[in-house]
Amino acid sequence: SNARGRPDSREKMTSKSVRVVLLGPGLVGRAVCNLLKSSRAIHAQRHGLKFDVVSLIDSSGYLAESKGIADETISSALAWKQSGKRMKDFQGGSAADMKSALSALDIDPSACVVDCTGTDATTPFLVESLGKGAGVVTANKKPMCCPFEMYKKMMETPTKIGFESTVGAGTPVVHTLNHIIASGDKIVKIQGALSGTLGYLMSGLQEGKAYSEVVKEAHKLGFTEPDPRDDLGGMDVARKALILSRLWGSHFEMKDVKVEPLFPERFASLDIPDFMAALPELDEEYAKQVQQAEKDGKALRYVASIDEKSCVVGLKAVEKESPLGRLSGSDNLVEFYTEIYGNKPVVVQGAGAGDAVTAVGIVGDLVRVALAK
Amino acid sequence: SNARGRPDSREKMTSKSVRVVLLGPGLVGRAVCNLLKSSRAIHAQRHGLKFDVVSLIDSSGYLAESKGIADETISSALAWKQSGKRMKDFQGGSAADMKSALSALDIDPSACVVDCTGTDATTPFLVESLGKGAGVVTANKKPMCCPFEMYKKMMETPTKIGFESTVGAGTPVVHTLNHIIASGDKIVKIQGALSGTLGYLMSGLQEGKAYSEVVKEAHKLGFTEPDPRDDLGGMDVARKALILSRLWGSHFEMKDVKVEPLFPERFASLDIPDFMAALPELDEEYAKQVQQAEKDGKALRYVASIDEKSCVVGLKAVEKESPLGRLSGSDNLVEFYTEIYGNKPVVVQGAGAGDAVTAVGIVGDLVRVALAK
Repeated sequence: SNARGRPDSREKMTSKSVRVVLLGPGLVGRAVCNLLKSSRAIHAQRHGLKFDVVSLIDSSGYLAESKGIADETISSALAWKQSGKRMKDFQGGSAADMKSALSALDIDPSACVVDCTGTDATTPFLVESLGKGAGVVTANKKPMCCPFEMYKKMMETPTKIGFESTVGAGTPVVHTLNHIIASGDKIVKIQGALSGTLGYLMSGLQEGKAYSEVVKEAHKLGFTEPDPRDDLGGMDVARKALILSRLWGSHFEMKDVKVEPLFPERFASLDIPDFMAALPELDEEYAKQVQQAEKDGKALRYVASIDEKSCVVGLKAVEKESPLGRLSGSDNLVEFYTEIYGNKPVVVQGAGAGDAVTAVGIVGDLVRVALAK
Repeated sequence: SNARGRPDSREKMTSKSVRVVLLGPGLVGRAVCNLLKSSRAIHAQRHGLKFDVVSLIDSSGYLAESKGIADETISSALAWKQSGKRMKDFQGGSAADMKSALSALDIDPSACVVDCTGTDATTPFLVESLGKGAGVVTANKKPMCCPFEMYKKMMETPTKIGFESTVGAGTPVVHTLNHIIASGDKIVKIQGALSGTLGYLMSGLQEGKAYSEVVKEAHKLGFTEPDPRDDLGGMDVARKALILSRLWGSHFEMKDVKVEPLFPERFASLDIPDFMAALPELDEEYAKQVQQAEKDGKALRYVASIDEKSCVVGLKAVEKESPLGRLSGSDNLVEFYTEIYGNKPVVVQGAGAGDAVTAVGIVGDLVRVALAK
């Protein structure tokens, strides 16, 4: 047979087992488990790898099975979690904080800890796991934005850590930066639209819609966080910018990233309904900025701009005929300007959010980290 | 100090030596040598790697120095080659065919053979080198388009072979495909503009220029091969398409790639001046196609289209608002449609030709192959 993705040249490889310890068995964790399950054949045949999920850990406790948790049990546990229940109460689950849960497990070079949480509480455990020779793959941006001294520790074994899905989800932004650095070409500037929500907003503004109208629309459609200020504040983009800047070589801390929120200071303390009601006050100002950009032959985008000396997140008028200027909708897009590529950047574009595409980045990283060991 | 690209977290790594054997010390070979030289610090500090060029080989003979050829000697040899002279006549050079040259060298796991030639004569030596445990990095498309049985052999140790720069030069097209496959997401379709020359042509046609006019312009500017039919025939794009199709998992041979040349059969036997003189006969036909596409809200592109069952290279009207439809000029651009990404593909764009950007792909591969060993 000659099925796609199964070239017989690779069928003879022996299998290497990777024990996957999953922190945060929520929606992204579920997508990772599903993808690992559906890709068993390809991982065995193409890469000689066998991934076994040996533990599911949340903030309440954990489930563990050193030989790998059975598929049906994983499905039940994920359904349990989705119904709002906790791992400690799942059949066979144990109550423990994340630290005890992790120390109860054999974290050794055959393990890979996958962080699908959204908390910076996992950072010390990721550092510790790397110290024990385990791999670490994180979709959680916060550990990569920890104090630089700790970041340095995590990057001591760069082949053991994967964080592709922290920027642009499964779209290979992190790899592309790594590839350019490894090639010896020099990065000059990185510029990117790194928020699907804000991309949707900017496209709406460009079409002539009012700021308040597009924000309300995005909120209603569930494209924003329950409090839209979590997106409009730019912090999520700032974290992604810091991750790229550090990977390039900066020693920046979060405080070094200059962030322009898309609402004024005085809007920060309002409760959500009052905030939504106050939005039209901003319509004129943003309409003006969009029109000014248009007049200059440019397009207004919410971008992360990273260069040798700075890391800035905010509104920027970019050339209309550039990749960023041509972008519309919620895709993420990053332009890498380098010495050799000159004024025509290397560009990567794709969906930057969503459980399934985030899982694509995680599982891609798992394979890379497993093969590097 | 805190220079970019030199995070002190990586300064303690020990150095691993990689002996680089360069086939084809021409313009691309020169760019590779220059990039390796200028990136010594970053390769040592980031990756713990030390690349030594131990041999320069052309079809006449070779120069070799087991401890690494001195920088000044490399420069002289490359200048010698550029002046049209041969390696066998260079001071210290030996006359030999490529086979004898390679067998005179220690090709072992510490070596990496880099193919910067444009001939399929290197294929058996690449296979042999891989068999001896050496790495292989090729910018030469022909070995990757060899009979499938031999291709299979080359891919037996996929971590040891790099061919990023065969498609899109330094722009990470090959890696992105590998990344998606490794993630377990399923590729549905690959569609890409893979020729800078034909991209320039299509942009010209879209602007309303005559076919003959744009071809003559590109020829004059040196954007085409001396015989423009080498570009217009589509064979270069066909090779790239075959490489992507095989990497995805097909067992296709060159003959399975359907190629539409941008000139009729009867133009193939003309000599170059007669061919150039006959071009205006084609203007009406291509203008009609461009206008028809425009009428349908589409843009005419010369693309490689790869799916589960076929590999086709030729003209195609694509949605004007798609990444390919928005492309203008000579950049390469590839859209990867997958099950998980749905109708919004992962997109990679960048310069796809040129000595320096090709070297970016080669050196990036060298690092990856060296780290995988």
